[in-house]
Amino acid sequence: MKIDGKPYRSVWVDEDGWSVRIIDQTKLPWELDILRLTDAEATAHAIRSMQVRGAPLIGAVAAYGVALALRADASTASLDRAVAMLGETRPTAINLRWALDRMRARLHNLPAADRVAAAYAEALAIADNDAETCRRIGQHGLPLLREIAARKPAGAPVNVLTHCNAGWLATVDYGTALSPMYQAHDEGVPLHVWVDETRPRNQGAALTAFELGKHGVPHTVVADNAGGHLMQHAEVDIVIVGTDRVTRHGDVANKIGTYLKALAARDNGIPFWVALPHSTIDWQVADGVAEIPIEERAGAEVTDLTGRTADGRIETIRVVAEGSPAANPAFDVTPARLVTGLITERGRCDASEAGLRGLYPEASG
Amino acid sequence: MKIDGKPYRSVWVDEDGWSVRIIDQTKLPWELDILRLTDAEATAHAIRSMQVRGAPLIGAVAAYGVALALRADASTASLDRAVAMLGETRPTAINLRWALDRMRARLHNLPAADRVAAAYAEALAIADNDAETCRRIGQHGLPLLREIAARKPAGAPVNVLTHCNAGWLATVDYGTALSPMYQAHDEGVPLHVWVDETRPRNQGAALTAFELGKHGVPHTVVADNAGGHLMQHAEVDIVIVGTDRVTRHGDVANKIGTYLKALAARDNGIPFWVALPHSTIDWQVADGVAEIPIEERAGAEVTDLTGRTADGRIETIRVVAEGSPAANPAFDVTPARLVTGLITERGRCDASEAGLRGLYPEASG
Repeated sequence: MKIDGKPYRSVWVDEDGWSVRIIDQTKLPWELDILRLTDAEATAHAIRSMQVRGAPLIGAVAAYGVALALRADASTASLDRAVAMLGETRPTAINLRWALDRMRARLHNLPAADRVAAAYAEALAIADNDAETCRRIGQHGLPLLREIAARKPAGAPVNVLTHCNAGWLATVDYGTALSPMYQAHDEGVPLHVWVDETRPRNQGAALTAFELGKHGVPHTVVADNAGGHLMQHAEVDIVIVGTDRVTRHGDVANKIGTYLKALAARDNGIPFWVALPHSTIDWQVADGVAEIPIEERAGAEVTDLTGRTADGRIETIRVVAEGSPAANPAFDVTPARLVTGLITERGRCDASEAGLRGLYPEASG
Repeated sequence: MKIDGKPYRSVWVDEDGWSVRIIDQTKLPWELDILRLTDAEATAHAIRSMQVRGAPLIGAVAAYGVALALRADASTASLDRAVAMLGETRPTAINLRWALDRMRARLHNLPAADRVAAAYAEALAIADNDAETCRRIGQHGLPLLREIAARKPAGAPVNVLTHCNAGWLATVDYGTALSPMYQAHDEGVPLHVWVDETRPRNQGAALTAFELGKHGVPHTVVADNAGGHLMQHAEVDIVIVGTDRVTRHGDVANKIGTYLKALAARDNGIPFWVALPHSTIDWQVADGVAEIPIEERAGAEVTDLTGRTADGRIETIRVVAEGSPAANPAFDVTPARLVTGLITERGRCDASEAGLRGLYPEASG
């Protein structure tokens, strides 16, 4: 998508033909800082420190990290080391494992001399596939927004609520949850997006608002607490969120707080949709609440916040009373019973094993 | 309750015998700044700017504001002007109207010469009554916590979740929702409180954490998004919140986000209790969602945050992408069907007209 009129992806190979470029998302929305990654360690750091985040983007960046490792040392030991190191950076994201497994499968039987070129080609294929996957997710979500617009008076905006950032910055391009919104906006469907700020890391306030603003999509940031009230008062027509992992039963792990919005949507008869690429489906897991391990991140993410002062300085402030500890579970699981449906690159389906197997009959597990 | 071992109330008359002292709660938790109010205008400003907040405290401070107005001019016109001005400071808090009506009823038939002394006496009576009311709320809530403790292994803490600040800083003393927790803690019931940070004004992170910490009650601050996840994983035994207004049907207006916690409590079979003094009951209103006007506050409360830097400076930072607007509904309404029960100074009851009339048979409306 575009920033100030210029098309971007969220990961690409530099003009030098080998180093890897990413946007440092920890600097957004204040600064567009393009980082240059030259080895697998820096790539692992970028994922771990959330300079890149979002399940699909993490997978593509990790794939390029394997390519960088092999450029330094094309041995099988180096391949295994890179895959292991990159695989440990974030425990919840299923795409990370998927992308690394794909890289190892492609590379591990090749002669060392052929591995570097093949690794770059495979990482690019993962990135291109992701962009195309997200474009298709948008195409399959678009009818939901068109139908709501058709029921409203001409020109009345469709009010969508979203949580966290499932936009192009979280993928390679288009985004997952935001892809239908971008495509609806681009074809003239009147649209307004309620953006949950998404504490504690504020990905909604910082990233989703940035993305939508740069692309010209009308939107309003709200505290995470506000969504239930907005739904009670018919200010939300549909909720669309992304996900980090969907179980084969259709349970949805996503940014902490998603479950609360799903409960409110259900209580107010508002459709709650989850957009995802197939790589997010975990066929091995059935019961998401019981089985998905939830990453516990540092309490400092809750107690301390970074932003820009009126005179332009970037400052970090503590907002919690001195001496009070904080807990920081990063994700929660929304049970399938609260999910109206899933939007994938192959179409829409029920949040159920039957729904998912209908779209992915070839899946094992 | 206590700060560093010293007993405090949240409003009191200065040693000079007439000016009114409050703790500037906008400076908490960073600085204990005791303000001196000398006229009704400063009192209205203190309420409007939330230097004092919390429904019961607002009522008591407004009552002292009437006394200050009469000290300057004891005429009926002055009384009416003060009541009108103070009544417009916050639209949602029912106690404000209740306290001002009580002051006018007490004062308006007195000769002007008797009004000042009577006004101070009435304001003190309102404050004393509130402290005693809150103590009793705590006594009636205490058995709920004792019962949970009795079902647990010896020494295992009762985990309570609370939203916003319904502690002694929101009342004159003890608090409403926090009063049972203070009294349980003081009598040795093992207790741990999950404190919702309560965006956008962070009353949980700043005030509830401050209060509990100063009193020595174990607690952990969490993002507002975390409560559903904690409830899914049996980390919460009971939710207790305060309220700004309860309808005669038992619908509960409270800080934005309360409704989401009530939904999660219901979904996980966790009791959800609301603590309130009788002055919070609005017998004129039945359906809270449809009838209670919700204050829309400045978007800047969402986009900008104030806190302390590591080197001790107080800074305000913007956390939302530049150019993105924010909306800020300050309260939401939790329908009575989601409320396990109400804890009042007269005992506990169902969140229903029958429940409330059982405790308050004398109420009209």
